[in-house]
Amino acid sequence: MLTLGAIREAHARIRDKIVRTPVLTSETLDAESRASLFFKCESFQKIGAFKARGATNAVFQLSEEEAKRGVATHSSGNHAAAVARAAKLRGIPAYVVMPHNAPKAKIESVQRLGAKVEFCEPTIAAREAAAVRIIAETGAQLVHPFNDYRVMAGQGTATLELLDERPDLDLILCPIGGGGLISGTAVAAKGLKPGIRVVGVEPAGADDAFRSFHSGTIAPMVNPQTIADGLRGSLGDKTFAVIRESVDDVVTVSEAGIVRAMRGIWESLKIVVEPSAAVAYAAVVEGRVEVAGQRVGLIVTGGNLDLDSLPWISEVL
Amino acid sequence: MLTLGAIREAHARIRDKIVRTPVLTSETLDAESRASLFFKCESFQKIGAFKARGATNAVFQLSEEEAKRGVATHSSGNHAAAVARAAKLRGIPAYVVMPHNAPKAKIESVQRLGAKVEFCEPTIAAREAAAVRIIAETGAQLVHPFNDYRVMAGQGTATLELLDERPDLDLILCPIGGGGLISGTAVAAKGLKPGIRVVGVEPAGADDAFRSFHSGTIAPMVNPQTIADGLRGSLGDKTFAVIRESVDDVVTVSEAGIVRAMRGIWESLKIVVEPSAAVAYAAVVEGRVEVAGQRVGLIVTGGNLDLDSLPWISEVL
Repeated sequence: MLTLGAIREAHARIRDKIVRTPVLTSETLDAESRASLFFKCESFQKIGAFKARGATNAVFQLSEEEAKRGVATHSSGNHAAAVARAAKLRGIPAYVVMPHNAPKAKIESVQRLGAKVEFCEPTIAAREAAAVRIIAETGAQLVHPFNDYRVMAGQGTATLELLDERPDLDLILCPIGGGGLISGTAVAAKGLKPGIRVVGVEPAGADDAFRSFHSGTIAPMVNPQTIADGLRGSLGDKTFAVIRESVDDVVTVSEAGIVRAMRGIWESLKIVVEPSAAVAYAAVVEGRVEVAGQRVGLIVTGGNLDLDSLPWISEVL
Repeated sequence: MLTLGAIREAHARIRDKIVRTPVLTSETLDAESRASLFFKCESFQKIGAFKARGATNAVFQLSEEEAKRGVATHSSGNHAAAVARAAKLRGIPAYVVMPHNAPKAKIESVQRLGAKVEFCEPTIAAREAAAVRIIAETGAQLVHPFNDYRVMAGQGTATLELLDERPDLDLILCPIGGGGLISGTAVAAKGLKPGIRVVGVEPAGADDAFRSFHSGTIAPMVNPQTIADGLRGSLGDKTFAVIRESVDDVVTVSEAGIVRAMRGIWESLKIVVEPSAAVAYAAVVEGRVEVAGQRVGLIVTGGNLDLDSLPWISEVL
C-alpha cells in the first residue's frame, strides 16, 4: 500500500542522500499563463532526475541480508543511474538492463556510477526477461522503475517538499510514464491537502495512462512515439490502482507542445530540462488544463539529455 | 571612488529589487578540476544577468529632479535590459542605443521592458555619439554600462552575497568586458577578506584588459573577435584604475575553451548560461589559473542567448 505515512518515512530515510530541489518561478511564464506557476526542479536532483528519490528509498529499505547480493533493474536511463548511485552509496553491486538505443549520456552516467550494464532490445518484454535472468544468476533484488511501493513512496517525497514550501497550491501537474511519480505525487498531495487537484499529463504519442484512466482498464502502450523518452513506458498494476483512486484527470499533449514548453522553460527559467520534464508545462502551453488564476505546482522531472541534438535545432521531429 | 562601503550601500538600496542568486556546485566539475568550485549564478538574476545590480543601483541613486527626465545608455544587451527594467520600476523613461547586430533576444527583451531603442553601427564611437545626442535632446542621465562608480558598486553586490555564503573562498574568477563587474568584485572581495585573490578572465579575441593590465596603459580593443558578446568592450579609465589597484592577475582563454566550459556548465549544473558567462570557468578548463586544492568562486554572469544557434551545434565558430 502507498500511504502518506510511507512517503514521510521515505523522506526521513533519504533526505540526507538527495537534494532538496528548488522551486522556481518566472514572471514571464506567469503572465503568459495567467496563473502562478511553481516549478519543482528535479533537474537539480542527484543524477539529474527525481528517480534518485525512489531508487534511494528502495535500496536503503533493503535488509543487510538482501542488500549484500545487490540490486537489479531495467530502465531507459534515469532510474538506472539512480539505482547505480544508491547502490554505490550503500556499497552493494548494481546490475542494470538498458535498451541499446538509450541516450548516450544516460548510458555513460550509469557506467560512471559503477553499475554493470547489460544491453537488450528496446521492448518492455526484452528488458524484463534480461532482468529476470540476472536476478536468477546473482540473487539481486529487483528495484522496478515504477511498479514498486518503495519506489512510488520515494517519488512522492518531491511533493512533500513542494507543499511544505508552497502549501497554498490549487493544482499539481505531473508527467506520467509508468506512473511511479504521479502515484507518489497524488498520495502525498491528497494526504496533505484533500482539496488539491492532481492532473497527470502524457504525450499523445504514449497515451496509455490516458486511455487506461478513462476506460478503467489497463491499456498498454505499443510502439510509443514521442521525444519524451522517459515517458514511453506503460502503467503497472500498482501504479494504475493508485492513479484510479487518487488522480483527478489525465490529459495529453502534442509533440510540438512538448518542444515549445521545453524551450520556454530553457529561455525563461534558464535551466536545462529534458523533453519529458517539460510535459507538465506543455499542458499549460497547449491549454489542456484550466489554470487561469490558480496556483499551480509543476513537477520538472529531469535535466539529462544529449546537448548535441536539441529538438528545435536538429531534425528530431 | 569605489569602496566596500559604497557596495554595501548599493546592496541595501537594491536588495529588494533584485534576486539573491544561488551558488551552485557540482561533484563532477569539482572532480575534474581537483578544486571546490562555487558558481555564483547571475543567470538567475532579474533580466537574466548581473547587470540588473549596477543599473538598479544607478537609477535608484538619482535625485527626483534628475530621475524625471529619464535615463539613457548604450549597451550590447544585458545592461540595456537592466536599465530599462530599473527605469520601469522607478516609473521614468529609458532611452537605449543598441548596435543593430545585437542578439535578437536581447533587443526584444529591452523593448518588452518599455524602453525606446535606437539602433547604431556596432562601434563604441557610434554608440557613444548616439547616446550624447539623445541626452542633449531629452536631458536624460547617462547610465554608462561600466565606467560609472554607481554601476561598479552595484555589480560588486554579487560578491557580497557570495562571500556571505562562502566566506572561506581562496580565489574569485571573474570575466572582464568593460571592467565594471570585476571592479566591484575586487573591491568587495579585498574589502571583506584582504588575503583573497581575484583574477580576471578575458577571451583571447578581446584581450584589451589583459594587455592593459600587463602593460600599465589602457590598450583599447579594435575589432574584437569572440563568441562572448558581452565581453567585446574595452576598459574605461575608472575601471582600469580599480583593476590595476585591486586585481591580482588577468588571464585569457581561447574560443574553444569558452565553448567547452559553456557546455560543461550546461551538462553538469543543468543551467542555461551565455558564452560570456562561461569565461571564468574556461580559465579552469584550460588550466590558465592554478586552482587545485582551492575553494574558488566563479561569477556566472548571465543566461541570455539565442537558443537557435548553440556553438557546439551550429556553425558559429
